[in-house]
Amino acid sequence: MMHARDITWSKTEKSVARVAFDLAYRRECEAISKRINDMIRDIANPGDIWRLHDFLSEKREEIDEKYDYRYSVLIFVFARLIKEGWLKASDLGGLHEDKVARIIALANM
Amino acid sequence: MMHARDITWSKTEKSVARVAFDLAYRRECEAISKRINDMIRDIANPGDIWRLHDFLSEKREEIDEKYDYRYSVLIFVFARLIKEGWLKASDLGGLHEDKVARIIALANM
Repeated sequence: MMHARDITWSKTEKSVARVAFDLAYRRECEAISKRINDMIRDIANPGDIWRLHDFLSEKREEIDEKYDYRYSVLIFVFARLIKEGWLKASDLGGLHEDKVARIIALANM
Repeated sequence: MMHARDITWSKTEKSVARVAFDLAYRRECEAISKRINDMIRDIANPGDIWRLHDFLSEKREEIDEKYDYRYSVLIFVFARLIKEGWLKASDLGGLHEDKVARIIALANM
C-alpha cells in the first residue's frame, strides 16, 4: 500500500487543498467564537472567566495540533476534518478521485 | 522599622481585610469581563480569538500573582490594589489607623 508521504499533489490539487484547509479552519474558529459568546453571556462570577480561559487554552492546543498543512499528512488531516464535520467531501472536489476515496475511507474508520 | 511580617491582625481586622480583598478581586474580574465583551464584539477573524486567549493568559498570571492573601504580605497587596484603583482607602475602614497610613504611604511610593 502506498504511504501517505508518497502521494503526489498536482498544482491544481494544492490549490484545492489550501482552500479546503482554510475553509475548515475558518468554520471551526467560527464555532469557537460562537461558543465564546455563549460562555460570555453566562459569566456570573470570576471562576467563569478562568473556565473560558481553560476552554481557549484547550482549543488552541487542539487547533495547533490538528491544522498541520504538510502534504505528507494532509490526507489524514482532511479525514479528521471530515470526521469531525468541519469539511464535507464536496469541499474536496478537484482532488484526484483516489485521494478523495482514501480520505473518506480514513474518515469512516 | 517594623517588618510587615511582624504586623499583627486582630480578628476584626482579619474580617475587614477579607472583605476588602474579595471586593478588589471582584472589581478587577468585572473589569476583565467587560474587556472580554469588548474584544468579543470585535472578533472578525481567527487571530482575534487567540489574541483574546493571550489577554486572558496574561491577566490570569497577573491576578494569581497579585491576590496573595498572606498576612505577611497583605500590607503590600492592599497598597498595590489602591495604587491600581481596585480599592479605595475607605474600603479599609476598620483596620488600625497605623496600618491604613502605612498602606497609603506604600501606595503613594
